[in-house]
Amino acid sequence: MLIAKHQNIIDNAVKANHERTFYAQYPEHPKAYGEEAPAKGETAFKSLLNQPFSRLKQKVIAGWAGEEVSPYTQQPLGITYPVIATDELVKAGRRAGNRWAQLSAAERAGILTETLEKIKDHFFEIAHATMHTTGQSFIMSFQASGPHANDRALEAIAMGYQQLQHFPEHQVWEKPMGKVSVKLEKTFRAIPRGLGLVIGCSTFPVWNSLPGIYADLITGNPVIVKPHPKAVLPIAIVVAAIQQVLEENGQDPYTCQLAADSSEHLITKELCEHPDIALIDYTGSSSFGNYVESLATIGKTVFTEKAGVNSVILDSVKDIDAVLNNLAFSVSLYSGQMCTAPQNFFIPESGVGTPGGKLSFDEVAAKFRDAIIALVNNPKMGAGTLGAVQNDATVQRVKDAQHAGGKVLLSGAPVVNEEFAGARTYSPTVLQVGANDTGIFEKELFGPVILLIKTKDTDHSIALARQMAAHHGAITCGAYTTDDAVKEKIADAMNSVFTPVSFNFTGFIWVNQHAAFSDLHVTGGNPAGNASFTNQEFVVKRFVWVGNRTYMD
Amino acid sequence: MLIAKHQNIIDNAVKANHERTFYAQYPEHPKAYGEEAPAKGETAFKSLLNQPFSRLKQKVIAGWAGEEVSPYTQQPLGITYPVIATDELVKAGRRAGNRWAQLSAAERAGILTETLEKIKDHFFEIAHATMHTTGQSFIMSFQASGPHANDRALEAIAMGYQQLQHFPEHQVWEKPMGKVSVKLEKTFRAIPRGLGLVIGCSTFPVWNSLPGIYADLITGNPVIVKPHPKAVLPIAIVVAAIQQVLEENGQDPYTCQLAADSSEHLITKELCEHPDIALIDYTGSSSFGNYVESLATIGKTVFTEKAGVNSVILDSVKDIDAVLNNLAFSVSLYSGQMCTAPQNFFIPESGVGTPGGKLSFDEVAAKFRDAIIALVNNPKMGAGTLGAVQNDATVQRVKDAQHAGGKVLLSGAPVVNEEFAGARTYSPTVLQVGANDTGIFEKELFGPVILLIKTKDTDHSIALARQMAAHHGAITCGAYTTDDAVKEKIADAMNSVFTPVSFNFTGFIWVNQHAAFSDLHVTGGNPAGNASFTNQEFVVKRFVWVGNRTYMD
Repeated sequence: MLIAKHQNIIDNAVKANHERTFYAQYPEHPKAYGEEAPAKGETAFKSLLNQPFSRLKQKVIAGWAGEEVSPYTQQPLGITYPVIATDELVKAGRRAGNRWAQLSAAERAGILTETLEKIKDHFFEIAHATMHTTGQSFIMSFQASGPHANDRALEAIAMGYQQLQHFPEHQVWEKPMGKVSVKLEKTFRAIPRGLGLVIGCSTFPVWNSLPGIYADLITGNPVIVKPHPKAVLPIAIVVAAIQQVLEENGQDPYTCQLAADSSEHLITKELCEHPDIALIDYTGSSSFGNYVESLATIGKTVFTEKAGVNSVILDSVKDIDAVLNNLAFSVSLYSGQMCTAPQNFFIPESGVGTPGGKLSFDEVAAKFRDAIIALVNNPKMGAGTLGAVQNDATVQRVKDAQHAGGKVLLSGAPVVNEEFAGARTYSPTVLQVGANDTGIFEKELFGPVILLIKTKDTDHSIALARQMAAHHGAITCGAYTTDDAVKEKIADAMNSVFTPVSFNFTGFIWVNQHAAFSDLHVTGGNPAGNASFTNQEFVVKRFVWVGNRTYMD
Repeated sequence: MLIAKHQNIIDNAVKANHERTFYAQYPEHPKAYGEEAPAKGETAFKSLLNQPFSRLKQKVIAGWAGEEVSPYTQQPLGITYPVIATDELVKAGRRAGNRWAQLSAAERAGILTETLEKIKDHFFEIAHATMHTTGQSFIMSFQASGPHANDRALEAIAMGYQQLQHFPEHQVWEKPMGKVSVKLEKTFRAIPRGLGLVIGCSTFPVWNSLPGIYADLITGNPVIVKPHPKAVLPIAIVVAAIQQVLEENGQDPYTCQLAADSSEHLITKELCEHPDIALIDYTGSSSFGNYVESLATIGKTVFTEKAGVNSVILDSVKDIDAVLNNLAFSVSLYSGQMCTAPQNFFIPESGVGTPGGKLSFDEVAAKFRDAIIALVNNPKMGAGTLGAVQNDATVQRVKDAQHAGGKVLLSGAPVVNEEFAGARTYSPTVLQVGANDTGIFEKELFGPVILLIKTKDTDHSIALARQMAAHHGAITCGAYTTDDAVKEKIADAMNSVFTPVSFNFTGFIWVNQHAAFSDLHVTGGNPAGNASFTNQEFVVKRFVWVGNRTYMD
């Protein structure tokens, strides 16, 4: 049994998932992977450029397409991917699924854990691929698409493995009836819902897709992976590795397929609406996400992560510089292109409490602006923290924001990247708006734009942050207060609209980060999405318990 | 802590739920409840007739309504129930919910288990109330609305209690970062989704409603119970008992409210579409159930049990008489008004295998008809098994069925009930149809009508039964075969459309029965409904995990 080899990894993951203590199966430090790995990975990445991607096991191909452009060089990667007709994808997926569903949860968990070990061998290659499609810095690319993504995949395996064993496979049920009894043999089967579809995004093509892919697979469903046409390579390397391990273990590699397409001929809706697609995982814009959610009415089980407007509530602090340095990093990290990045900063007009007395709104705003400028201009920090802007639409949004109606406290501008002269990099734009300017701050301004909103007091800040989350969704909320009663009030208000709160973060931890095995990512309770990495619901909706009974003489 | 008092009951229920062995907290034998209980219960029931039902704690009342008629006497019960404006119900429910949500899962489990103990004291009263609203026999009324319903409620409490403890309430997360570490205090809260609505049916007003009511309550949601206006009393007694225990334990009795209405002014849709209703549980017709399911698009979390067409596949048997006696009972029990009752019997034209050789289709049909006639005419069995038909629409359906197009093998007719001369009781109608007559057998013919369908062979029977379940839904499937390969084929085919199979039932166990703590009721995977009593999904969709984090210096 394969599972024996990986039992320890899975048992630890199940335990960590329950306990929520710190746990990482895949270390986030590049150094943990050996001295030769970085150079080897870079070479492997470069060898993929300017040619068809040939590692996939999928063979019935209708054509080739590829349109990726590096946000660092603004040059095409020149890689093409096989384009496959939707009906072929579905047919092959269904056939593979019939076989995959026959395996026990333990057998599937074993093979899937082995795929993660295989993906690990490609971490550096995937990091370069992520960097040159998403614009993330190298270190973020490495961590987010490598160890962090693998850990979240393992978390989905562990949750599925456990929930699939909620009921026994076999049981004898004996009902006493006076002098006699009735005996039934009962079997409980977790029947997979059917073919899955995982729709990726252009900013986190691996991290956001792996939970859905592995949740589908552990519960016995075959899966089709539809990447964003501008960010295919990172997940293509992953899918190829999964296919290789499937084949090595006597399984059908079509159990996990890549469905590349092109901006000119997108196949996402065609796939979504195919009658044989039972499960859909989606990360991306709210408008397409709302379309995906509407497919529930035609019987699809859907899991979405859409957009939200994340708030920070500033009430009182122990050390204002430590707080604003932390927040300057949060808003600069990958140029605000994380779904967890804070956007709206609610600051009372009377200012923020500090050990030395109240610091006025204007003082806080000025210090915040200065902290951002210092970070951006720090040659060891700036370009590396900002990364690059993934696409021109985001650049345009940043430019438009300056005329959105707020007072421009800091105007975003191109930032020089020493390593890549052509990098599409912008410093954050900071606007000041009033509490009545909801037309400005109720929208997600994806990218490096933040809003400082002057409120009457902290209660007003809480009410606005809560209202934003309830009506427009929120994935995170940061809050700073030294008052336990205010803390409880913020937690209750934001939790009531299903938004988690991170309190008083300073130092080397940021509100943007959600750690595998401990933090849930998106709650599924507000308009930012209907699913959560990785709660019980994220896996149990992917299979159906069916109980058979046999009369025993 | 209340929980101490009931910890043993809950622990046993959690264990039984996991293990799926036989378990009953509430014995199904009336004798287990003491010698005085039956007479006391009957007296209590009679004392409720012909007056307003005054036990509820709900006080802001807009009027009174009541229209129940006994299927046994065809006389009105003369009981009226408070009618309350929808906005009042919602307002009171929300207010109560704020308080209820503050309790721990253990505190809620304790109070809810105590409500079941209180309901137990009313089992005989509820039995009479069920009998004279639904038409069930006394013994079925006692078991289904009493111990069996309580056991399913306890099962929902146990599943919720366990799933709510999947993550710890508090945890310290310490991430090692070389020489230093980052420490966060993390809390995990299971936030209730919001106000629940449970919509009852006229045939199983308690058994079908308690799982939803208790799943809502254990997960911290207040609940409004909207009974069918023709079957209010049984669930009104239950809600009053729940309210009494809530109040005794310092809780708001409005945490569980009754929302009676009248056929002339139904408030179901008004409640369903109220923006503050978050959760809906529904049992009843497919047409209204499909409407309820469509409310998912406006953000409601819905759980449905609708109609299906249940099949029996006859391939080969050890003892044909034992099989047909078992099936005769299954189709006669409560006159086919159970959602689990078999309707379509697929029999090969070449006949059914027996130890003495093949028995032809006609021979099987004749024996089956004779077994039904013998049961119906047995003075100790007939009227008691059939019970009474709940309403005139079902009687009309039975009459219409004789002209549906099939060959009438047995024509249903009124049956005399010795105890109740006015009872609305009909014997089963048996029709023979061809495999091409899908227009006849693809519909649910709710009530005492069954169809014997002549197929080419068992493979053909399986294909038709599978097709019915996939397109029209199925809650149960019975199958008889002595061949292990055929057994596996039937199980795989029916399970693939998320339908459970009961094999070779004879003697004192029937396909209609789904036992708490062991059998799942409805799978949630085919058109018969989207939910299942009681799998993990049935409870985890009712709350949202939210994790807060605090930086620890």
